[in-house]
Amino acid sequence: MISIPRGTQDILPQDTPKWRYVEAKLNEIAAAYNYKEIRTPMFESTDLFARGVGDSTDIVQKEMYTFKDKSDRSMTLRPEGTAAVVRSYIENKMHGDANQPIKLYYTGPMFRYERKQKGRYRQFVQFGVEAIGAENPAIDAEVLHMLYHIYSSFGLKSLKLVINSIGDIDSRKEYKDALVEHFTPYIGAFCQDCQNRLHKNPMRILDCKVDKDQPSVASAPKITDYLNDYSKNYYNEVKKYLDRLGIPYMEDASLVRGLDYYTHTAFEMMSEAEGFGAITTLCGGGRYNGLLEMLDGPSETGIGFALSIERLLLALEAEGIELETDERLDLFIVTMPETMNDAVKLIADLRVQGVRADMDYLDRKMKAQMKQADRLNAKYTFVLGGNELETGTVKLKEMTSGDVTDVKLEEIALYLKERA
Amino acid sequence: MISIPRGTQDILPQDTPKWRYVEAKLNEIAAAYNYKEIRTPMFESTDLFARGVGDSTDIVQKEMYTFKDKSDRSMTLRPEGTAAVVRSYIENKMHGDANQPIKLYYTGPMFRYERKQKGRYRQFVQFGVEAIGAENPAIDAEVLHMLYHIYSSFGLKSLKLVINSIGDIDSRKEYKDALVEHFTPYIGAFCQDCQNRLHKNPMRILDCKVDKDQPSVASAPKITDYLNDYSKNYYNEVKKYLDRLGIPYMEDASLVRGLDYYTHTAFEMMSEAEGFGAITTLCGGGRYNGLLEMLDGPSETGIGFALSIERLLLALEAEGIELETDERLDLFIVTMPETMNDAVKLIADLRVQGVRADMDYLDRKMKAQMKQADRLNAKYTFVLGGNELETGTVKLKEMTSGDVTDVKLEEIALYLKERA
Repeated sequence: MISIPRGTQDILPQDTPKWRYVEAKLNEIAAAYNYKEIRTPMFESTDLFARGVGDSTDIVQKEMYTFKDKSDRSMTLRPEGTAAVVRSYIENKMHGDANQPIKLYYTGPMFRYERKQKGRYRQFVQFGVEAIGAENPAIDAEVLHMLYHIYSSFGLKSLKLVINSIGDIDSRKEYKDALVEHFTPYIGAFCQDCQNRLHKNPMRILDCKVDKDQPSVASAPKITDYLNDYSKNYYNEVKKYLDRLGIPYMEDASLVRGLDYYTHTAFEMMSEAEGFGAITTLCGGGRYNGLLEMLDGPSETGIGFALSIERLLLALEAEGIELETDERLDLFIVTMPETMNDAVKLIADLRVQGVRADMDYLDRKMKAQMKQADRLNAKYTFVLGGNELETGTVKLKEMTSGDVTDVKLEEIALYLKERA
Repeated sequence: MISIPRGTQDILPQDTPKWRYVEAKLNEIAAAYNYKEIRTPMFESTDLFARGVGDSTDIVQKEMYTFKDKSDRSMTLRPEGTAAVVRSYIENKMHGDANQPIKLYYTGPMFRYERKQKGRYRQFVQFGVEAIGAENPAIDAEVLHMLYHIYSSFGLKSLKLVINSIGDIDSRKEYKDALVEHFTPYIGAFCQDCQNRLHKNPMRILDCKVDKDQPSVASAPKITDYLNDYSKNYYNEVKKYLDRLGIPYMEDASLVRGLDYYTHTAFEMMSEAEGFGAITTLCGGGRYNGLLEMLDGPSETGIGFALSIERLLLALEAEGIELETDERLDLFIVTMPETMNDAVKLIADLRVQGVRADMDYLDRKMKAQMKQADRLNAKYTFVLGGNELETGTVKLKEMTSGDVTDVKLEEIALYLKERA
């Protein structure tokens, strides 16, 4: 028997209503903030991610699904959404649109070849936003407010928003020099990855899961001590807005997003719900002022976040929140062999009118059809026999109460709609 | 500059509302027919498609995106949806569910490495349904009615439904023998693909685009002359239902779906709209009674179809049908430097209440902000100045009429909702 690929999952009919509910809500919230949807392909030139995510990252070095297409071009299943959105912004010359900033969102599968663990899949779904073309603390606040609103609107309570500033490019440069100086005496004790990172990207040493308990990590210089006036001021403005918006947050100077193009505001949303598991990060994001130029685009700045829908659903489960999806079948028609032809016509007409209706296709006896109606949790049923066809009236039974009402065939749809 | 992969497309913000509209409508129609959504991964074991689509098909031989994962397993981006849905049905033991038939639908990207042409992309989106677990002409009619209803409900008129029966396995066997006998004297004149197909899968010779003008194709025996009584009767029952449902159709004995597991009902929906282009097929489908066993599943039978959303949108365009998407911004708030802090708070509160609102983030002057409101096609605007904050009242301007109304800050959301 052929199995599903390791580390991937089927989302089965009992769970898809939750996904549709979440996605519809995310679409609605995005519209309230005037973000427009964009859909990019599932795969891109490998080069895009090497440059746009970063050659020195785990994602690019270890986790990408890369393959050659039939013309021998190297392609990669997208491991994240930002690089492709920025590629599309540049390629479609959105920079030339007068409506700056351009505010975009996306929802769709991402692919990373990671070790299997709870809440982590090799194909997972991210919802993300990108606001490109404005460097203004107010838009950072907008993005953070949207993020906070998304989680709150689902009823989640055990949330922790962590923020930091990694400053502008000048501040980062000074900080990087300080880190290299700090780590050089100790680097021999670090993992091979960190040794490689020392000169290329020393900030990523602070993120390393292997070396997180090294004493020199705790004693490393903090980015916040290296922010220049512009960066400090920008960060203070963002925090002032967050205070005004009543968004609770914690500052954490060790939250650095170790990619060269990240600048200023960086943030993560965590779940503190009990039983949520080891991976507590729900969402990460930040400002990326160098990314567009790095991809040969205009020198525009951007900010965005990406959240995993799988983890959002896990957080809802951990906090015992049920989503109110409405998937109930309106009607099950019990048929007889001699009324089958009319039943097929009647159910088709009802469905065209929007009634969610079903019937039997396995020649079940009447009693078994009644059971089927129960199992399908239909709100109403009726039997379509010869008598019903003759009189043009059915005995519509409300399944919860057992109440029976005479309804004319042509009035069934209206009757059900009025009671929906 | 890095470009999008050849043969793929970005769906840009001006087009995504149409996609969401179409998908929402398809979800709604699927619910009316009691089909439940399933989502399977973007890639599967290559083996699944080799067996489930067929080794001798163009898809498997020429068009698949196949790659090795990091554990050296051969994976393939799904070229179609049925094989994976059936894999999931078997793997998740849906056969054991009492609610037979199991009625499933899916929407999502598929991948085929095809030559680029209008309406054909290497990544394209299919909506498909599968009803597994019932062999009954009434369910064939249900599937065909859903298909017809989908296209009609979008307002399409120039539709042509073509149907055929390719009979049960016994009928097919006799027919294949007749085809081999018929083509053997002429096969030397056929393309290499057809020469290979002669004994493996002679029905596919009838589908071949290269050899379609060979005289022996026109004179080939017709499947309809080889249907046994059971198959003939099944086909007649399906047609009787279609007549009763008022669905116009044409019969075409040359419509054979050349895969070994197809049986009985086969169909295609075509567009006859002028200017639709060379590819007129909107959707194809049929009954597959051998597929589950071929994938080591139970001996259940199924029927389904898959339609391309790209082609549906092209057909709408060809018939000049516009979808009524509602994407309009409710409100643009014109700010002043000294009210920025309050504007950020006010707009956040309005968005939480569901108002689609935006403001300026580029320090534009008031006049330029007004222009931005126009460009964004906002329904309403107001200026938030010091006076408005003091009195707690804004002058809300309806942009089409130019009418201005005094509205209290805390009543803006309600005012807009009542006029939405």
